[in-house]
Amino acid sequence: MKQKTFALRGNIFYSTDSKNIKAHEKSYLVISDGKVEGVFETLPEKFSGIEIKDYGEDLIMPGMTDLHVHAPQFPFRGLGMDLELLDWLNTYTFPEEKKYKNLEYAGQVYDAFTEALTASPTTRAVIFSSIHVPATKILMDKLEASGLITYVGKVNMDRNSPEYLTETTEQSLRDTEIFINEAKNYRRTRPILTPRFTPSCSDELMKGLGELKKKYNLPVQSHLSENPSEVEWVRELCPDSKNYADTYDRYGLLDEKTIMAHCVFLKDDEFELMAERKAFIAHCPQSNMNLASGVAPVKRFLLRGINVGLGTDLAAGASLSMFRAVADAVGVSKLRWRFINNEQKPLTFNEAFYMATMGGGKFFGAVGSFLPGYEADVIVMPERNSGVRREHLLERLEQSIYLSDENVKLTAKYVKGEKIF
Amino acid sequence: MKQKTFALRGNIFYSTDSKNIKAHEKSYLVISDGKVEGVFETLPEKFSGIEIKDYGEDLIMPGMTDLHVHAPQFPFRGLGMDLELLDWLNTYTFPEEKKYKNLEYAGQVYDAFTEALTASPTTRAVIFSSIHVPATKILMDKLEASGLITYVGKVNMDRNSPEYLTETTEQSLRDTEIFINEAKNYRRTRPILTPRFTPSCSDELMKGLGELKKKYNLPVQSHLSENPSEVEWVRELCPDSKNYADTYDRYGLLDEKTIMAHCVFLKDDEFELMAERKAFIAHCPQSNMNLASGVAPVKRFLLRGINVGLGTDLAAGASLSMFRAVADAVGVSKLRWRFINNEQKPLTFNEAFYMATMGGGKFFGAVGSFLPGYEADVIVMPERNSGVRREHLLERLEQSIYLSDENVKLTAKYVKGEKIF
Repeated sequence: MKQKTFALRGNIFYSTDSKNIKAHEKSYLVISDGKVEGVFETLPEKFSGIEIKDYGEDLIMPGMTDLHVHAPQFPFRGLGMDLELLDWLNTYTFPEEKKYKNLEYAGQVYDAFTEALTASPTTRAVIFSSIHVPATKILMDKLEASGLITYVGKVNMDRNSPEYLTETTEQSLRDTEIFINEAKNYRRTRPILTPRFTPSCSDELMKGLGELKKKYNLPVQSHLSENPSEVEWVRELCPDSKNYADTYDRYGLLDEKTIMAHCVFLKDDEFELMAERKAFIAHCPQSNMNLASGVAPVKRFLLRGINVGLGTDLAAGASLSMFRAVADAVGVSKLRWRFINNEQKPLTFNEAFYMATMGGGKFFGAVGSFLPGYEADVIVMPERNSGVRREHLLERLEQSIYLSDENVKLTAKYVKGEKIF
Repeated sequence: MKQKTFALRGNIFYSTDSKNIKAHEKSYLVISDGKVEGVFETLPEKFSGIEIKDYGEDLIMPGMTDLHVHAPQFPFRGLGMDLELLDWLNTYTFPEEKKYKNLEYAGQVYDAFTEALTASPTTRAVIFSSIHVPATKILMDKLEASGLITYVGKVNMDRNSPEYLTETTEQSLRDTEIFINEAKNYRRTRPILTPRFTPSCSDELMKGLGELKKKYNLPVQSHLSENPSEVEWVRELCPDSKNYADTYDRYGLLDEKTIMAHCVFLKDDEFELMAERKAFIAHCPQSNMNLASGVAPVKRFLLRGINVGLGTDLAAGASLSMFRAVADAVGVSKLRWRFINNEQKPLTFNEAFYMATMGGGKFFGAVGSFLPGYEADVIVMPERNSGVRREHLLERLEQSIYLSDENVKLTAKYVKGEKIF
């Protein structure tokens, strides 16, 4: 679709690499055909006469990419953040994900989720749905209509899960292929293969997903090395694999179109495998704190040149805000420096901002910066300084408190040059 | 001042101890003469005819007590959160605190600070000012007018500080006595002795403050055992003290009217001393993360019955919101459990809520609960789900991002039964 050339004016910020943020006061971001032409302090002659939207003193920056978020967990974010992993899964996650057999419920939640995501600093996201194809299609319909650009995955689970969330291997693969074919009708909403994680996917299922990946040339998202007991469990489940990362890699599920969430406890050979495969790591600082997972060695990822972005990991992260993810990434890196490895410096703000924009954006191509040629995902905000009700009154208190810090009100959002609001 | 009896209606929550929160749906909180009469699901006969303010579905809970906050650091909150302690102090804290010689500047900042504090969930606070008596008086004027109930301390520093923030011992004590006498004119704003911390206060100054404490029967606030290098430094500075806590205790500065911020690395004998003296600990989870201090053993404080509340520690904590302090206290306790001591369970939400309300409120007396007889500090919020501009553009971005999560809009606030808004 041909778009005209136009400019946004304001205080403009963007990363040029993991260390540097460029800042231009009262400048022009020129966009043409959905791509960045450049940022100019004075509008060049050749652009004279183009439409200029002046945002005054507002901040203009690249839209953020949420590399890891579970849409069906939206209703219970901010709940059970004082539980340990297994209690949290059994109390909230699994019972909630079961509900997405009900399409009316799915529609209600995915409306609220899409609305919140659209209002947030996120312009691109890589999203887990549930095992249910019809509900996943509802989610994709709503995301497509929002104007955001996303990957969405129907989840695969054929073992070690509650009965009501366990598919047979055949059904899981058959449903995935249906899902892939139905996803062809969307422009902005793309399918991604989504084995939940090794403990809930048999070798046969992984093998089948590897074949689907090849057949349809699809990206993959999953979880890797989130917590010590999980790592140990995978070792027991997959005695033939060299390590946890290999349980995906040996079925062709680990390449430059793969996102692995967490990677808190990678062993050296896994670390090198992630680098060689050019796979992406979704660092989820708030989730890793809330579930007592630990703190991933993000500085080391950056120094080694591993692709790394940030994820909110809703609802293990209570906040859908990528601004919180930026602040939390810096915060937990301080505790890592203090407690785990004082030879790895904490993250800088610039590094965290880079991961939230350019780092994660790279999964979508030239996304997350205002360097010339980048796709024009833009958020505008003033300087300065969830939708399904709980039965239980105490939960309503807890949730209200956890969610009350998420009310940033953006002035405008553009995705690939198209104005969303 | 005699107030009439009235009731607030809504969904009511309050701690009864560190483990339990009572929840009453659509109930009545009856207040008489600024104190809680009780919470009733049906209004008792004897209260028939009293004024009832119906807040519908809103949540009604005790106002929160911020046990540790630095008012002059308000302008730079959300900045330098990726720096280490000394860089942060030298880049932001000390240069900022110097500015409070300028009363126009002080007035501008303390207006913004008081406005933000009033809008926040906090109804009581214990506040560090700077070394400057005139600026401290401006802060007290504004706080007095706000209706909040606070303690405010002119800071004492006579060694190991930048020249522009170093008082002579005599001047420091003289100014403190002036400050104490001027503070007599306030109704809601009370003076508190505020030796910054042992490294910046000579033995002679501590001794003089101990005498002022006795003479005027005053409370005390300071910092204790925030980070390992500081602990080591105090050991070198005070070879005659048994431990860091003793550097205060030996001058009579540690009792049930003392608040010590942080207490991350208390040794066993200091831990016992805090318990015996019934002193209060202000746990500041976000600050302890941001400055890479560590995570205090809060569960152990609670189990031992030590008085403990929460502090935002603005601006080492970027957020002025006690709601964030509640969530952060739970969050960092998860990492403590993972990395430091997996025999101490993480904090529960109930424990964190207790500390923010009843735990810290106890420093002010019967404050922070709706048990009968408690002073009626109340906040009402809808269910659901800083003011001086920086020169540097990149700082404006960083600050905007850190502060954008703080926009909770309360419906109403009462302090000791008086309606603030």
